[in-house]
Amino acid sequence: MSIRIGIMGYGNLGRGVECAIKQNPDMELAAVFTRRNPEGVKVLTSGAAVCSVVDAPAWKDKIDVMILCGGSATDLPQQTPEYAKLFNVVDSFDTHARIPEHFANVDKAAKEGGKLGIISVGWDPGMFSLNRLYANAILPEGNDYTFWGKGVSQGHSDALRRIEGVKDAKQYTIPVEAALEAVRNGENPELSTREKHTRECFVVLEEGADAAKVEEEIKTMPNYFADYDTTVHFISQEELNKNHSGIPHGGFVLRSGKTGWEKENSHIIEYSLKLDSNPEFTSSVIIAYARAAYRLHKEGQTGCKTVFDIAPAYLSAKTPEELRASML
Amino acid sequence: MSIRIGIMGYGNLGRGVECAIKQNPDMELAAVFTRRNPEGVKVLTSGAAVCSVVDAPAWKDKIDVMILCGGSATDLPQQTPEYAKLFNVVDSFDTHARIPEHFANVDKAAKEGGKLGIISVGWDPGMFSLNRLYANAILPEGNDYTFWGKGVSQGHSDALRRIEGVKDAKQYTIPVEAALEAVRNGENPELSTREKHTRECFVVLEEGADAAKVEEEIKTMPNYFADYDTTVHFISQEELNKNHSGIPHGGFVLRSGKTGWEKENSHIIEYSLKLDSNPEFTSSVIIAYARAAYRLHKEGQTGCKTVFDIAPAYLSAKTPEELRASML
Repeated sequence: MSIRIGIMGYGNLGRGVECAIKQNPDMELAAVFTRRNPEGVKVLTSGAAVCSVVDAPAWKDKIDVMILCGGSATDLPQQTPEYAKLFNVVDSFDTHARIPEHFANVDKAAKEGGKLGIISVGWDPGMFSLNRLYANAILPEGNDYTFWGKGVSQGHSDALRRIEGVKDAKQYTIPVEAALEAVRNGENPELSTREKHTRECFVVLEEGADAAKVEEEIKTMPNYFADYDTTVHFISQEELNKNHSGIPHGGFVLRSGKTGWEKENSHIIEYSLKLDSNPEFTSSVIIAYARAAYRLHKEGQTGCKTVFDIAPAYLSAKTPEELRASML
Repeated sequence: MSIRIGIMGYGNLGRGVECAIKQNPDMELAAVFTRRNPEGVKVLTSGAAVCSVVDAPAWKDKIDVMILCGGSATDLPQQTPEYAKLFNVVDSFDTHARIPEHFANVDKAAKEGGKLGIISVGWDPGMFSLNRLYANAILPEGNDYTFWGKGVSQGHSDALRRIEGVKDAKQYTIPVEAALEAVRNGENPELSTREKHTRECFVVLEEGADAAKVEEEIKTMPNYFADYDTTVHFISQEELNKNHSGIPHGGFVLRSGKTGWEKENSHIIEYSLKLDSNPEFTSSVIIAYARAAYRLHKEGQTGCKTVFDIAPAYLSAKTPEELRASML
């Protein structure tokens, strides 16, 4: 029998989850839940139900794992604990500083409901976190580096669009190649914010807006741009739509460490991602962990887990015997 | 209380394990076991015992995890099951094709003894295997690529030294940069053996040996060199000792996959290692898994495990709370 998946929230991430289910023959999409009028929401999967979020509790016994596809700012802190009482859940909560609090809330709710929740699944947090953990456990003496990009930062693009005179905009975060090379060479550099990433903005102005004023406002915006070398390009809406409509992202996690009785040997561990679609890749990670959630719950486990708590074999559709014979 | 480690076999790997223990304050080296006369073996750790292998059973209650540092060809197939009856064990068995059989033998022995064994720990098998598994679980539709090097292949260096007229030699395996780039670009190339790696040999000839004949014999050696573009350099023993005495290695694991309803988006996952010392890095991975073996056994688990079966958090000296707060 297939693992029956529910999708809560049908935006970019929800659609990514739907696509990922299609690639995994041991899974099926049971239902999509939306806050919109379900009759106005078309999904790609034939046979999948589209329901209002208020009907979700009625699906308690018809869904094995519910994927929560809302945002980390306001949706998930409320939704994940709420639905963890009824379903096994997976979310991609990505506000790093609030993970301990979110974990505690989901753990309590899931234990109450006898369910299992996996939080903060994706690539950062997610695969990048795993690589930080593995690399630190292997090389206790060393330095960690994380670079993001080249990719679209949604938060920074939103910040640009809030500026007066800006009609539309996209912002790319770009790692500084020289900094990456210094890390790869084992130089263990101490890098400032400015030395690690640059920011490139593609901005469509409102009719009659003052380009110089907008550029100045961008480059001096605290937290978002002031600490970076920022480039601003003014382009037309057509050009933005044509060349900047994708949602690529990626990045690099490196650990540079020493071994030997006198720390005489150096080692570099590097993990990198180059992603055409940030939400589709995140969804693909989520679906692998949905398989783990289903299996762990079947074994009787409940409460909250993260990627750190889950043995890799649980993610794969292959049996342990197949994995040992083909991938070890 | 520290985790008490035993080292069985004091070659390059055993010495690497000793160095790794020094970097992990929750561990201590209890004893080194050798087939040589223990009085002739000097270890670096003050306070550690040096014993004959025949005395190992007497240490049953004084060692928490025994690290088996023998070779995969003849030592480990016999040693790991033997000692898994008495100790929790970790080995680095790396004959990929024989892993299922080795797993079964260790599983049976460890269960008989009520102990836990982790086999095939290191980087390939080991960290590379983990990355193959994670990447395949995330991107079910795609292609896998593993490249090794630049690094010293012990097996190929040994093959060179068996040739008549060769006094000493070192062989480097080198990934072909153009092939790596094609994979990174998402071209999904089908690569022959020759297209993936080249082999570079540094050879010291015996007095009066025929260089042309030796070179011909190397380049046409079946399995080892015939299928590769091989370069041979004849150098002096002094030069070999001066420039080629290290044991560097490393490599790349990549998965190139597609997502999207019509597979319209491409993704590249890449993991790479650049290691000054192959045995010291392998030992560092082993020691992290020794921590996992100790903890899992304390929880009551027995039998054989691989890196696929072990949740990442077990490898780290940090608590789950610390890991979530600092690395997720």
